Parts: sequence; structure tokens; C-alpha cells
Amino acid sequence: MPDQMIYRPGLDGVIAAETQLSYLDTENEEIVIRGYELIELAGCKTYTDLIHLLLHGSLPAGAERSNIEASLIKEYSLPQGFFTLFEKLPSSTHPMDALRTGVSALAGHDERLEDHSPEVMRTTALRLLAKIPNIVANSYHILQQEPVIEPREELSYSANFLYMITGTIPSEQEVKFFDRSLLLYSEHEMPNSTFTARVIASTNADLYGALTGAVASLKGNLHGGANEAVMHMLLEGKTTDGFRHLLYEKLQKKEKVMGFGHRVYRNRMDPRASLMKEALRELAKEKKREDLFDMCEAGEAVMKEEKNLYPNLDYYAAPVYYLLSVPIALYTPIFFAARTLGLCAHVTEQYANNKLFRPRVLYSGPRDLHP
Amino acid sequence: MPDQMIYRPGLDGVIAAETQLSYLDTENEEIVIRGYELIELAGCKTYTDLIHLLLHGSLPAGAERSNIEASLIKEYSLPQGFFTLFEKLPSSTHPMDALRTGVSALAGHDERLEDHSPEVMRTTALRLLAKIPNIVANSYHILQQEPVIEPREELSYSANFLYMITGTIPSEQEVKFFDRSLLLYSEHEMPNSTFTARVIASTNADLYGALTGAVASLKGNLHGGANEAVMHMLLEGKTTDGFRHLLYEKLQKKEKVMGFGHRVYRNRMDPRASLMKEALRELAKEKKREDLFDMCEAGEAVMKEEKNLYPNLDYYAAPVYYLLSVPIALYTPIFFAARTLGLCAHVTEQYANNKLFRPRVLYSGPRDLHP
Repeated sequence: MPDQMIYRPGLDGVIAAETQLSYLDTENEEIVIRGYELIELAGCKTYTDLIHLLLHGSLPAGAERSNIEASLIKEYSLPQGFFTLFEKLPSSTHPMDALRTGVSALAGHDERLEDHSPEVMRTTALRLLAKIPNIVANSYHILQQEPVIEPREELSYSANFLYMITGTIPSEQEVKFFDRSLLLYSEHEMPNSTFTARVIASTNADLYGALTGAVASLKGNLHGGANEAVMHMLLEGKTTDGFRHLLYEKLQKKEKVMGFGHRVYRNRMDPRASLMKEALRELAKEKKREDLFDMCEAGEAVMKEEKNLYPNLDYYAAPVYYLLSVPIALYTPIFFAARTLGLCAHVTEQYANNKLFRPRVLYSGPRDLHP
Repeated sequence: MPDQMIYRPGLDGVIAAETQLSYLDTENEEIVIRGYELIELAGCKTYTDLIHLLLHGSLPAGAERSNIEASLIKEYSLPQGFFTLFEKLPSSTHPMDALRTGVSALAGHDERLEDHSPEVMRTTALRLLAKIPNIVANSYHILQQEPVIEPREELSYSANFLYMITGTIPSEQEVKFFDRSLLLYSEHEMPNSTFTARVIASTNADLYGALTGAVASLKGNLHGGANEAVMHMLLEGKTTDGFRHLLYEKLQKKEKVMGFGHRVYRNRMDPRASLMKEALRELAKEKKREDLFDMCEAGEAVMKEEKNLYPNLDYYAAPVYYLLSVPIALYTPIFFAARTLGLCAHVTEQYANNKLFRPRVLYSGPRDLHP
């Protein structure tokens, strides 16, 4: 143990791991993913490309992209009888708790659970990437007493995910925007859920366990859930004037307004939010819901004027999901499904260069008591 | 963010939190639990006393002990139909994975899941302490296609736990030693699983999620599982000579021998191990298995001579569990059940003085790539 103990509450300013996966460059206001800027990737690549980039280290070339797609399609389905698990949960179970239970239970169906070699890890990651959207969509349907929507192998990854949620084959435009949201949520350096996964993996525990812990973390309202909170706020506001009024009221009461501010983009709008704003503009026009776009812009203006705060990804992803007919309770589970990619890459990296996480404490209780 | 970033791999020498719960005093070779030395508590107190100490801050006085016992008994049973969850898991599911899935699923049955007030937290902790032994024992029975063993309200906490595992009402002596093992495993400062639970809880995620993550962590062979490894080694050795031979062989091959060495007790035998050794001596005599005690002592001598290493708790807890007729695959789940106490206390403390864990990374990947 080093001689000098260090205490930084919340591990603020503490480096937890070396990584080649991503970096929040606050100085240059860039989210770096394996050397690329995330925003640049979002403009011309798909979530499947990011899978190759994060799991293999490079953007796919030649047949690599279609190989990934084929591997995913083969794994869309869940083991036979798996859905009965969700039928046994109380119908009031939170969707994130159902997802957590499902990811945990899936471990028993994987015979190579304890093989942490990079090759097997990539296969397991693809398996999880393929199956988690199915768990997200259908655990929700089952808890809502709705029929299960089985995956369709002729659909692309993002099209199939959205289809399993809504039951309707989505348009090309809808798939494009949904895919983009997944890409934007796919990886983000070391937030609490990624840290949780790496801490668990550092004991040599399996990938399913690490992801189960990450679902638990993302459920907390200081981490995930902001996109859901934004949508509830928009629905409560109802109209542009109503929403403006609601925001002023919240600011006056010093309540936190979700969907604003970001640790990287401090002096401008989160460019991920800008991309989602463009998606919202197009979708709103297509679906004749320009009023929703106007509301969001009005809210953006209020927060800029009053607090000098800019929208982050959650602020514009929420209304996009809404216009894609995604139930609000699934926004955070979808965030998790997208982040599964980054989590699998981080756990693989942790195994490859592992050191058990084992910090110490500052003990401030009594001493020398006797029973 | 602080100006100066700090990197300590594995967070070695980093203080993760302030706590009044426990402290590994390596200088004075003491495990401190709320001011008491753990070994002193183990000599005269029971696991139920520790529940009061860790959850309420003091040893129970007057009716407090029987109040805790009554609260636990009321919560022994699992929700109706809960066991069907385990019937749906593949029978090859690892007991720790079944436990993880069970703890996660239990969340849906708790209406006060999101209430983190200290009073509700204590009630939820008692609920989990009462129900986790039932999950541990009966998820195992179900996966083994054995009949469920329902809890018996006339039995004390530890007697009922052991009864649900073996199906036989244990003797007073058996209960005493099993209870002592639970007490010794109950709390241990900030190992990986406790850290995992606090990291998850710091997002405001619920206690069930924090514990689910801790199960995942304890499953890793760098954390839990040492007690199981010890027992397999003893069984492989078969006789005193055979065991000695096996240890010499392992040392020659430079294989790690589980059950030896501890970060606090470096120059003497872990006093927790000494207590379990005494339990083993008595049980071995009672059950005419003095050969097992002799094997363990022989192994202790080999490791002292060859490596100057002393037994830790796991080394002597394993054969004690064996003589208590506990299946080996349940040693780590039992460790978790005992540690549930410390985990609930840590999560409660985290909520009461919370700061989100959010470390940074050392990025060593490429920069300035373009798609």
C-alpha cells in the first residue's frame, strides 16, 4: 500500500483506469471514441459500425460490417422459455429492475461464461448486444400484459429493436434517427455505470454480472432517467406557453431542470443534442407535431436566458423517442441497451490488464469499545 | 474537478468514503466494528447482536434484541410464487448467479423501494437479511431438483438458515458455530463487493440493485470463493499425507494456495481463523472426523514452514461448513448472506452523506482520426 493515503470524495479527479476506448476531452470539447470524434462518427456511421470500432479497435472494412450484422441476427432470439421469467415478476416491477433480472438470469444460458479470452469476449458481447434489446422490449410488454413481439431476422439491428418496442415496421427515416440515438449513447468514458462494471469485472466476475451491476447503477436518478424526466416535463407543460411557465416555476423554486448542462460541453450546446434536435425537426414535420419541436426550442431559450445552460443529449433524445412511439418507461432501458456496447468493451479491457479495485476508508467512528 | 489528477491502479491507497462502520487497523492488527474489536464481539455476541450494532449503531439493550429477532422471523418467507423464478433457470446455473437473479427480482415485491430514509432502510435491511438465506438455500435446492425447505418460525435466525440448507434441525453446538461464522463474515471495511454496493448506491439507485451488484462482485475468484477452493483442496488431498503432498506440489508449481494470508493479520494467524479452528476441533470430535482436523493442522504447518503464511478465516470456515453438512457450492452464497448486513449498513451510510462516484480515465488510445 502506498504510504500516503488520498481522499477525494466521489473519486473526483481520480483516474480509475487506463483506457484506449474513449475520452471526454473537456479542454477541446470533444468526445473521443478510439481516436475519432463521436459527432463526426454520428454523421456518417451506424451503431453497427461502432460495434466493430469498439470491440475490434477499427471501423469495419470489406465484409466486416456484414459479418457483425449476421452474428447479431443469429442471436436476436432469447432462449426458449426465457420470457416466463418476466411473467413471474409482479406487474409493478420497474422496467430497469426487470432488465437487471433478465440480464442476470441470461448468464445461466451461457456455457462459456467463465472464458474471458478476447475472442470469446467478443462473441459474448455480440450475444448480449443482440439479446438485450429483446429483453428491454419484451420484459416491458409482459409486465404491461401485452403480447410478446418476437424479433424479425430480416430487419437490421436498430430496425428490429424499434420494431420489437412498437410492433410496427419502422420507416427508413425512423430507423436512421433511432440508430443515431443508439450510436450517441453507446460510449461515454467512465460514468458511474461503466465504473461499476469495471469494479465488478476486476474480481474476475463474469460479463453478465458486470452488466447487471451497471443496470443497477443506471437506474439511479443521479445517473440515468434524465431523458424520461424531460419527457414528463414536456407533457406536463402541454403547450409552448405552458412549458415556458413550468420552467420558470421550477427555476424560481430552485428545482433541478433535467436535460441541461454537460461536463464536456460547457459553453455551447452538446453537439449530440444538436443532432437529435435535427432529427426532431424532421420527425415533427413528418408527423405533424411541429408544436413539440417549438416547445423544445422555447425551453432551450428559457434555460439559455435564465441560467446560461445548454441542452444535452437527453433533452432532445426524449422527444425524438416520443415521436418514434417509444413508451417513456423504456427511455432509460434503451439508453442501457445502447451503452451495453461501451460496457462490453470496458469489461474486456479490464480483464486484459486487470488490477482488483480495493480502496480504503476514512474511519470516523469510535474506538476501543468493549462489549 | 481538482487541478491535479491522481492515478493509483486498483485505487490502492485511495480512500473511497468516510465511514463509522468498520476499519481494518493493519497497524494494531485489529478489525474494528463500530469501535469494538470483531474478535471480542465473536467471543460473546451473536449475529443478531451484530445486526443491531451495524444498523442502529449500538449493541442491543433490553428488548431490542428480541425485537430484531421478531422482525426477522416475520420476514423469513418469500413472496408467494417466488420460487418458480428459479424453476425457470437452467439447472446448470451457478448458485451465485441464481442468488444474484433472486435478489434482483425481489425488488419488484417491495413497495418502498425508493424510500431511502434511515427508518425505512432499516426495515428493508431486516427484510433482506431475513429473506436472503431463504433464497440462498432454496434456489440451490430447486436447481438441484430437490424439494424446497420452507423456513420454520420457531427457529432462531442462524438455526433456521442452517435448517433450510440441510433439512435437519441443527444441534445447539452446530447453531453456535454456524452463527459465529456468519458474525465473522458480517462486515470487513471496503472490499470490492462493499465498494461496488456504495458506487451503485451513489446514483440513488435502490438497495436491491446495490446488493445485486455486490453478489456479482463476490462471485469473482479474486474476491469470494476461497472457502470453496479450500474445501476442494482438502477433499483432493484425502489424507494428512495426501494433503501435505498436494500443498508441496502446488508450492513447487508456484500455484496460489487459497486460505492463507490476510491484509490485516500479517505476522500471526487471523484470529477469526483461530475461532473457526476451535469450532472445527469440537465439531470434528463430535462427528468423529478428527482426521479432517489433523489434515487442516498439517496444512497449516506446511504453509508456515514453507511460506511463513498463516491461515485466514476461509481456511477454517470451509471444513466447519463441511462438518455442518453444507454443500460446498453454498459456501460463497453463505458468505454473501452474512455480508448482507455490512452491505446494508454501508448503503444506508452512503445515502445519508452521498456524493456520486465519477472517476476519470487515463486515455492512451489514438487521437485525431477521421472516418
